[in-house]
Amino acid sequence: MPRFRGIKVGEIRDQATQRQKIVDPKRTVDPACMEALCVAQETGTLTAFDRFAAQQPQCGFGLTGICCRICVQGPCRITAKSDANKKGVCGASDYTIVGRNVARMIAGGAACHSEHGHHIAKTLLHIAEGKVKDYTITDTAKLRAVAETVGIDTTGRSDNEIAKSVALAALEDYHKVGDTPCTWLMSTITPGRRAKFTHCDIAPSTIDRAIVQIMTQTAMGMDADPVNIIFGALRTALADYTGMHIATDLSDIVFGTPRPVVTEANLGVLDPEYVNIATHGHNPTLSEMVVQAARALEPEAKRAQAKGIKVVGICCTGNELLMRKGVALAGNQATQELAIMTGVLDAMIVDIQCIMPGLKPLSECFHTRFITTSEQAKIPASYHFDFREENALEIAKDMVRLAIEGYKSRDQSKIKVSKHKSRVVAGWSFEAMKDLFAGLNPDRPVKVLTDAIVEGKIRGVCLFAGCNNLRIPQDESHLTIAKTLAANDVFMLATGCAAGAFAKAGLMSSAAVDAYAGEGLKSFLKDLEAKADLGHELPLIFHMGSCVDNVRAFDLCVAMALELGVDIPKVPFAASAPEDMHEKAVSIGSWCVAMGLPVHVGVVPPIEGSELIYGLVTQIAHDVYGGHFMFEQDPKRAAELIIEALDYRTWKLGVHRYASKKYETTLAVNW
Amino acid sequence: MPRFRGIKVGEIRDQATQRQKIVDPKRTVDPACMEALCVAQETGTLTAFDRFAAQQPQCGFGLTGICCRICVQGPCRITAKSDANKKGVCGASDYTIVGRNVARMIAGGAACHSEHGHHIAKTLLHIAEGKVKDYTITDTAKLRAVAETVGIDTTGRSDNEIAKSVALAALEDYHKVGDTPCTWLMSTITPGRRAKFTHCDIAPSTIDRAIVQIMTQTAMGMDADPVNIIFGALRTALADYTGMHIATDLSDIVFGTPRPVVTEANLGVLDPEYVNIATHGHNPTLSEMVVQAARALEPEAKRAQAKGIKVVGICCTGNELLMRKGVALAGNQATQELAIMTGVLDAMIVDIQCIMPGLKPLSECFHTRFITTSEQAKIPASYHFDFREENALEIAKDMVRLAIEGYKSRDQSKIKVSKHKSRVVAGWSFEAMKDLFAGLNPDRPVKVLTDAIVEGKIRGVCLFAGCNNLRIPQDESHLTIAKTLAANDVFMLATGCAAGAFAKAGLMSSAAVDAYAGEGLKSFLKDLEAKADLGHELPLIFHMGSCVDNVRAFDLCVAMALELGVDIPKVPFAASAPEDMHEKAVSIGSWCVAMGLPVHVGVVPPIEGSELIYGLVTQIAHDVYGGHFMFEQDPKRAAELIIEALDYRTWKLGVHRYASKKYETTLAVNW
Repeated sequence: MPRFRGIKVGEIRDQATQRQKIVDPKRTVDPACMEALCVAQETGTLTAFDRFAAQQPQCGFGLTGICCRICVQGPCRITAKSDANKKGVCGASDYTIVGRNVARMIAGGAACHSEHGHHIAKTLLHIAEGKVKDYTITDTAKLRAVAETVGIDTTGRSDNEIAKSVALAALEDYHKVGDTPCTWLMSTITPGRRAKFTHCDIAPSTIDRAIVQIMTQTAMGMDADPVNIIFGALRTALADYTGMHIATDLSDIVFGTPRPVVTEANLGVLDPEYVNIATHGHNPTLSEMVVQAARALEPEAKRAQAKGIKVVGICCTGNELLMRKGVALAGNQATQELAIMTGVLDAMIVDIQCIMPGLKPLSECFHTRFITTSEQAKIPASYHFDFREENALEIAKDMVRLAIEGYKSRDQSKIKVSKHKSRVVAGWSFEAMKDLFAGLNPDRPVKVLTDAIVEGKIRGVCLFAGCNNLRIPQDESHLTIAKTLAANDVFMLATGCAAGAFAKAGLMSSAAVDAYAGEGLKSFLKDLEAKADLGHELPLIFHMGSCVDNVRAFDLCVAMALELGVDIPKVPFAASAPEDMHEKAVSIGSWCVAMGLPVHVGVVPPIEGSELIYGLVTQIAHDVYGGHFMFEQDPKRAAELIIEALDYRTWKLGVHRYASKKYETTLAVNW
Repeated sequence: MPRFRGIKVGEIRDQATQRQKIVDPKRTVDPACMEALCVAQETGTLTAFDRFAAQQPQCGFGLTGICCRICVQGPCRITAKSDANKKGVCGASDYTIVGRNVARMIAGGAACHSEHGHHIAKTLLHIAEGKVKDYTITDTAKLRAVAETVGIDTTGRSDNEIAKSVALAALEDYHKVGDTPCTWLMSTITPGRRAKFTHCDIAPSTIDRAIVQIMTQTAMGMDADPVNIIFGALRTALADYTGMHIATDLSDIVFGTPRPVVTEANLGVLDPEYVNIATHGHNPTLSEMVVQAARALEPEAKRAQAKGIKVVGICCTGNELLMRKGVALAGNQATQELAIMTGVLDAMIVDIQCIMPGLKPLSECFHTRFITTSEQAKIPASYHFDFREENALEIAKDMVRLAIEGYKSRDQSKIKVSKHKSRVVAGWSFEAMKDLFAGLNPDRPVKVLTDAIVEGKIRGVCLFAGCNNLRIPQDESHLTIAKTLAANDVFMLATGCAAGAFAKAGLMSSAAVDAYAGEGLKSFLKDLEAKADLGHELPLIFHMGSCVDNVRAFDLCVAMALELGVDIPKVPFAASAPEDMHEKAVSIGSWCVAMGLPVHVGVVPPIEGSELIYGLVTQIAHDVYGGHFMFEQDPKRAAELIIEALDYRTWKLGVHRYASKKYETTLAVNW
């Protein structure tokens, strides 16, 4: 049952115990990360890469989802030793246990995104009520557009009045008493999806209710029916979507909707002559203030003999700043510890989610000030600032001052700066994408994209999302799949740590277009570029933001459906999470399936212990919702699966250029 | 690390593999259950007792809480094999992993109770709005009392108007936008607790929010601080309390506040000459209708040659019916399968929580119709009725008809009726307790209880709560601890499956007073009995209801605190869950600790993997909140610990009769 994907167990043990001088090239394909891992091994510094190796072999019951710890009578593990072992103490079957476990992962993911959205909604409310001084409404056009989408009257009303209505409407999606489905869900999808979710009764009434309901549904002595559990989990996943859409919409209103920017990515963005501050986490409320504070305190940095202050990003806070401010990205999830190992990171300021607790002890081996800021995400012994909107800028300044202090206490012997960094063209909000397409068709911009598909110029669209997962070599699957799709003329979008992988590796530049794009995709991009008047080139893969910003890509998908006059399950649009790690990724993938998308996943979540659940999410889900999971670790095969899924959909649209004969004989599905 | 409590591993394996003819007497102390287990073994029928044995040895990582499956990179297990093994891949320490796991158990428990309360709140709202015909407001005095407690004006308003306000106020505690603490929490506790929860910032603003917040706080890359996680979990536990109080209050309004009743308990209540229907689960909304439907369909049962229809209860739905209707209790949690094995159970109708999925396949070995009713708790292949308030009685009648059909198809060769049943005096709501005490002091009834403590007549109060947990012999710890406390003059209350254990064993009768009560307790009870004019005797242990009804006991504790003029941590009141099993038990125990009670737990939840967390909940919690956990599996020692905790509190109140010298030298705590 236990599988150790991509690496042999023997190799891992050698790596953990013998500490060979050369890092196993199979741990990462990022040259900057490779350098840092070499330093770690030379100095005997432990990183997550070592801890992952030391955890091998991982428990097969946990890996496949058939360990139940939901009551104090457990843990129960399903084996085939005897009839009595085939079920848990209470009689729960493998499908019940697997279903419950994965449903609770989705609850965890939805809780993360929804808290993020809730925080931004309250910030917007406080802005509208004049209760905070450091934040303002930056994008009034987006404010009005969002208000109209969710049915709020804007006529003759001030920005603050509208903002208050929008914020309260968002909070209603969390809290309201009543059974009507969430506004942000129902107002941002196709009529076909609205009908489907109503028919299947999986539209959540509120975000919080959906999360609480799945927690009770999966408790001991509650639901044992795998279909009911998984459909309940899909309701929770749609609550996740709702919270994400609120987070993105309201962040844009407060901090501005991203527009194309040019910047850089990878550890080489850390400049030894500057005070370097990494912001890490997810919520722009903090990091935007850090950027402002850093600008304000440039003189203090210069007095400390630095050239200035350089704020860089890690993980999705990094993506938020990159998208809106052009702030350079130091790395994605698995890079977070390695940034400290450069010896020139003077402070790391973290907010929420994906923050490894290992960062704090690692920072103690260096001079890096490690600063936590959220009351929901503390790490013992860290510098902790109780960050609140009321005094945001002042607190951010205190943090930046701590970074300057850190700069002064650098240990020169530990500095190992990387030269690796890549040019990045990013900032592709849905609005920015529409503006881009409008260069070719101002009236119906999205038709540019759908026409290119219908005309056979490009093969469809793929959104890359998700994390790093050390179970497979960092970034490798991302890059392999993307290059394969590029060569096969797939138009690509990316968010989160997937976007981080592409940004670091130079795939968000025109050089990558020249190097990897097939003829169809290349001509499509060049035609767009010619009309765009951006002052810079277009990238091979379009960075759409942080992981909550997956809804930007989905907005594009909805627009494509409306343009094509079909529902989502017929749109040649796929999603791929080559290195899913966080519960959030499980949740996002699940709503993508409910929305009707084929979703590739590179690391199988713990569901293999139940053939029934596996079949449910890979096949039955498709029959009911039109979307399904494709679990495939091999990136070459994964690329083929994605292309096949797109080709099937283009073939259904009447495009026969790519579709192979086999689809004509395998029409067992409803879509 | 792994411990197999109460039984030796070798014994278990023998039991599982060799199927010896005689049931291990260590599995249960209930003679009716013992008989049924013998039948199971003779016929080769699997029950939870067999499945528990087959699960041995259980995984030590899971048992002690140091297995983390919160991201797809896991499972990570903490060992001391090397430095790299001391933490998870992300760097999470044992205390982080244990804290997160137990916090999520509390979230699961709080979600269960809160859904239950939410359901009743909506039922009350629909009654007030005239939307349902089968339910009504039964207890208008309770309605007005609850309204006044939570600050709702009752002057000149109709019952329906008040009920609507109460229902909406309850729903506000789930959903409202805003940061004020939950009304049901803050209006039902002492001023000292209000101040403590405000000071420690653990009063939840809404129930749903607290559950969602702890789910995100415990996600990958979020909180790593054990104190912050546990205090966040206590906030969730207080949300659990809030939902429970709503469930109990509103159930009383709709179905009536319990008053003393006399009935019977144990499998012997199943009468072979009747159509026997067991209601099992937790929510009275269903079971009350089953009772009504059974009455209405008596003629149909008689036409089928039965003497009539007998509805019995299992688990907490059983307790709800027992308390309000005097319906006999067939058994507690671990008895649920064994009721089917009598061969005379014609239908089992289940709603939510603690329903073993194993019931369905077991029912297939008999004629028993197994009926599920909740959309959140389905079991494949069961009869499923989509039970809703709108047509409740009609649906309940259909279920009863299915039971009559079942009666006709009994297999006479499988009938093994038990003769074991005990007399039970139950129905002790807080209101009923006050009425009882009012016999001695009409103006200040609770002073009767506190005076008895201050005068040294009784040693304090102990509430028994919680489940069955097959890790230890069914009911044994309950009975041993209770008999020991009785001999030591402790006044005892019980709820849930603890109450079920006592009811079955005859401890809720006056015979038990004569057999087990010490002189002080006996004279206290006899004095009460003499003034009570009940028409029947008083029990040794007072049944206060189902597991949500633990708040009834806590209301008494609050009244004692107010009567004594102290905060809860000084009240000689303890709680004990000798066989905690469900996440709900973990959650209840946790709010009891936050409320300031010493809480004995007989089966250690998965926290032993972190000394820090263990110390936090057994010691630091006491310093901060005045309550703490006492983990002790040995029932004799557990009874000593409970008595010591009570004696310490009475000693602090100035009662020196029981307190031993040692307290004078061990005053290291704040209370």
